[in-house]
Amino acid sequence: MLELQGIAVSSGIAIAKAYCLVEPELPVEKMEIENIDAEIARLNETIIKTKSVLETIRNGMTDTVGEEQAAIISAHLLILEDPEMIASMKDKIKQHANAEYALKEVTDTFVQLFESMDNAYMQERAADIKDVAKRLLAGLMNVELPDVSLISSEVIIVAEDLTPSMTAQLDTRFVKGFVTDIGGKTSHTAILARAMGIPAIVGTKTASKSIPHCSMLIMDGDSGIVLEGATEEQQQHYRALQREFKLQNESLQKFSSLPSRSADGHSVEIVGNISKIEDIDSILTNGGDGIGLFRTEFLYMDRDELPTEDEQYDVYKSVLTKLEGKPAVVRTLDIGGDKEVPYLSLPHESNPFLGYRAIRICLNQQAIFRTQLRALLRASNYGDLRIMFPMIATLEEFREAKEILLDVKQQLETEGIPVSEKLQIGMMIEIPSAAIIADLFAQEADFLSIGTNDLIQYTLAADRMNESVSYLYQPYHPAVLRLIKTVIDGAHLHGKWVGMCGEMAGDTTAIPILLGLGLDEFSMSSSSILSARRQIAQLSKEKLATHIEHIFTLRTSSEVEQYVKTMLMEM
Amino acid sequence: MLELQGIAVSSGIAIAKAYCLVEPELPVEKMEIENIDAEIARLNETIIKTKSVLETIRNGMTDTVGEEQAAIISAHLLILEDPEMIASMKDKIKQHANAEYALKEVTDTFVQLFESMDNAYMQERAADIKDVAKRLLAGLMNVELPDVSLISSEVIIVAEDLTPSMTAQLDTRFVKGFVTDIGGKTSHTAILARAMGIPAIVGTKTASKSIPHCSMLIMDGDSGIVLEGATEEQQQHYRALQREFKLQNESLQKFSSLPSRSADGHSVEIVGNISKIEDIDSILTNGGDGIGLFRTEFLYMDRDELPTEDEQYDVYKSVLTKLEGKPAVVRTLDIGGDKEVPYLSLPHESNPFLGYRAIRICLNQQAIFRTQLRALLRASNYGDLRIMFPMIATLEEFREAKEILLDVKQQLETEGIPVSEKLQIGMMIEIPSAAIIADLFAQEADFLSIGTNDLIQYTLAADRMNESVSYLYQPYHPAVLRLIKTVIDGAHLHGKWVGMCGEMAGDTTAIPILLGLGLDEFSMSSSSILSARRQIAQLSKEKLATHIEHIFTLRTSSEVEQYVKTMLMEM
Repeated sequence: MLELQGIAVSSGIAIAKAYCLVEPELPVEKMEIENIDAEIARLNETIIKTKSVLETIRNGMTDTVGEEQAAIISAHLLILEDPEMIASMKDKIKQHANAEYALKEVTDTFVQLFESMDNAYMQERAADIKDVAKRLLAGLMNVELPDVSLISSEVIIVAEDLTPSMTAQLDTRFVKGFVTDIGGKTSHTAILARAMGIPAIVGTKTASKSIPHCSMLIMDGDSGIVLEGATEEQQQHYRALQREFKLQNESLQKFSSLPSRSADGHSVEIVGNISKIEDIDSILTNGGDGIGLFRTEFLYMDRDELPTEDEQYDVYKSVLTKLEGKPAVVRTLDIGGDKEVPYLSLPHESNPFLGYRAIRICLNQQAIFRTQLRALLRASNYGDLRIMFPMIATLEEFREAKEILLDVKQQLETEGIPVSEKLQIGMMIEIPSAAIIADLFAQEADFLSIGTNDLIQYTLAADRMNESVSYLYQPYHPAVLRLIKTVIDGAHLHGKWVGMCGEMAGDTTAIPILLGLGLDEFSMSSSSILSARRQIAQLSKEKLATHIEHIFTLRTSSEVEQYVKTMLMEM
Repeated sequence: MLELQGIAVSSGIAIAKAYCLVEPELPVEKMEIENIDAEIARLNETIIKTKSVLETIRNGMTDTVGEEQAAIISAHLLILEDPEMIASMKDKIKQHANAEYALKEVTDTFVQLFESMDNAYMQERAADIKDVAKRLLAGLMNVELPDVSLISSEVIIVAEDLTPSMTAQLDTRFVKGFVTDIGGKTSHTAILARAMGIPAIVGTKTASKSIPHCSMLIMDGDSGIVLEGATEEQQQHYRALQREFKLQNESLQKFSSLPSRSADGHSVEIVGNISKIEDIDSILTNGGDGIGLFRTEFLYMDRDELPTEDEQYDVYKSVLTKLEGKPAVVRTLDIGGDKEVPYLSLPHESNPFLGYRAIRICLNQQAIFRTQLRALLRASNYGDLRIMFPMIATLEEFREAKEILLDVKQQLETEGIPVSEKLQIGMMIEIPSAAIIADLFAQEADFLSIGTNDLIQYTLAADRMNESVSYLYQPYHPAVLRLIKTVIDGAHLHGKWVGMCGEMAGDTTAIPILLGLGLDEFSMSSSSILSARRQIAQLSKEKLATHIEHIFTLRTSSEVEQYVKTMLMEM
């Protein structure tokens, strides 16, 4: 029997056969070939076969997983039709190289070229070429590649890591869980699993090498344990847990229509984060009290030009209409950092997370900002709109952004277009300087919303995307908790409400602390809403007070985490 | 008459002729040449001439500005001898291209290649190739380049910007000031000017385009004003100011032997920042009370392998010996970020300032760390050594670093090598999380030293090297001041002393605030020590108290700056 311990990043228990996504070794040797025509024909044939396989995959996907994912495969098909690349391969063959060697030489060159460009878009292109090259090479060498799109029975995917192009092909009906060697809480695999509502365990280090393909696996997405070849007893234990989990999930459903209120009657708002209009449905199904973060930058990404005022107006109006009076907090354009918008030609930066992004761009390129604000203000009449500015570091920035908004409002009113009286104007607290002087901001803003993902990475000076320092992404670090308390106290001092829209707001260890500190609004992914509401219903804000006092004497993130976990078990 | 307003970054008044470093236009056209041999000969001849010019420059420099700067020119000479590059140019000429076009095509390719590598070292190489290419092109086209090494009368350098290779050639006897179009307080030009003790004004936007070469210039490095074609009256005014400045500078000298004490008798330490052992002399000449920051990473840079324990021991011992009992705060290895050490093969990172650097590397690659600590502890017997760890974000990191130090100490003692009893173990406060919980650190460290350069950039989430967001590098931001107060109060609560070793510690606007808050040690560049000591001697800590109270009600960096400046004028 094999037992592995990884990092639990998505809840639930899965029991299914392992589907090992092992990359086959495809060693290429240089050989001198005689018959050039035959070698070129062999390459052509493989290209045609590979195209037809990819087309089949793509057509299947359009039905099952949607257009967006299918587009990844379309990009791969385009690479197969690249005349320059194909011609270069044939040139090499004409110099008597074998097709495998010619393929590898040419694609390696292109991959290196794209990778050296240090631009997320180009690096994705490099990954695409690698994918296609592997497929062609396997074809030339008659090696079968694991094809996740062919999965047609329930499995747990075991892999070194999941890449976006692999996940594009996953049929979510059959995939019951993920186990990977690498990754952390914020890795692609973790985010995907939580979105799919299936368990995931990352960072097992060796799973892909030690778990046999098709072996029976048990995984516990809460403890991070993976069992292969479990005893009958263990299987029964986990099946019982699985049933319990399922029952719990069903019992959670009743919370979809209950108010968000603590055991001692303290009301909060539990709302959802969305990136596009379609995301609202699952927020509403789970009984969310509204939207706490609409990431409008996704309206600007994956296209060739800025969205027009009317395009944006339609989206904002639809969001507010769908919410039927529930509030929507909309964040203005937050690009830059790791979010690229090629057509804006933003400068290349040494430290993009500390660079020209979000409100810094909007205050400088005001035409873009004003268009968005016009669209938002026009839509404001269709619901309870709350606009917030991202990446505010100084009071001057907030004042300037608010002034522009009020100027746009006045212009609209001059044009006879009314703006809702209820409109609230707030800001994100995601930069330490803003958190530290939250009391000053609260005198000029209608509300504050803490963005913990950025706030934590700036407070600890650690890029959470960087594996070498991701251990420093510590939501329970005493300094982070002190900052959150500073923000909440500062806002309440001036009668303003405080929300939170980072990962932390939906985290079961953080929720008792946040409730105890008096956070007013918790914004999270739709899959966390019900369990957050249940957890809050079971907690008494008043009783938490002494615990909070104790927590603020603790000195490290792990002491805090340990204390809260013990406290929750003893409740 | 022309008056320009720029950013004053180095004090003093200069009156001298403008030396305009205007890059000549060198437009290259593609031409079909007939006589290939003649064209190759023309290229060869230019290369030989350029070599001889560069050799003359280099030989001159070794005497005047030192080996280190001359090495830049040696690198340029090596490029001229690069067989691959020269052969590629000749190949192009053999295809009937003119030498100018061949040169441009080939060097552009190399420049692009190096620039695309996104690595500071390679990008420097790209800049070097550009420099050499320009020199060759000018030679081919018979255009004279401005050659700063030929300056032999007093001038004020006017340029778009200064690059390291330009400054390498400056003869500091003749250069009386710098005026540039771009740059900020922390730009290369600013740092160089302060080190040379000459006035500098950056960010004038248009100086290099609007000031005629050889025209009479007046510049005031305190107000940021540049005057061209000044009236007789203005000239007299500035000459008077210049005399006064000189007198003041002379009167400053008496402070070199006075204690660092406020008007009401509060003692502080005014110490210096050094990067290499030679820097100590000017600290001592200016009467520094010791060293507040020894940046040991410079022992690791610009070489091919790690410095040995004995090499380091010799340096640390010499530093302590030279100080004759005055304290030396030595920072352990702080590489990563923008400080590259190629032979350590550190990973390429998307956000190096938020990445794997300083103590994060040392705790992970302990052999390097232990070697440095052994060298330091062995040297401790020669003076008053205080070791501090950089980039501490969590209490666990400080504890681990301290544990390793104590372990090394025990090993040394087992080997019969004593370690000084007086040794202090402290840490840098340069990450917001550390500043916020300074009270917790103060219970386990002997002292805290605030590194404002990093602290400010993390607190405002703005890379100070990035021109687009450098306006957010705000030392007087209320959040920064609150953090500094938190650190000082937290340390004093537990009876520990607090230093500061960022640019801010020597800043005349910041000094009254820092003194008022109770900062114990001010560490700065040697050129600021005397004026800081005089300023502190004129201030009463007690009287500052009510001002500090008022400053902490202000809401923006510019309000604080304005208030302190007015306060200082009224004193």
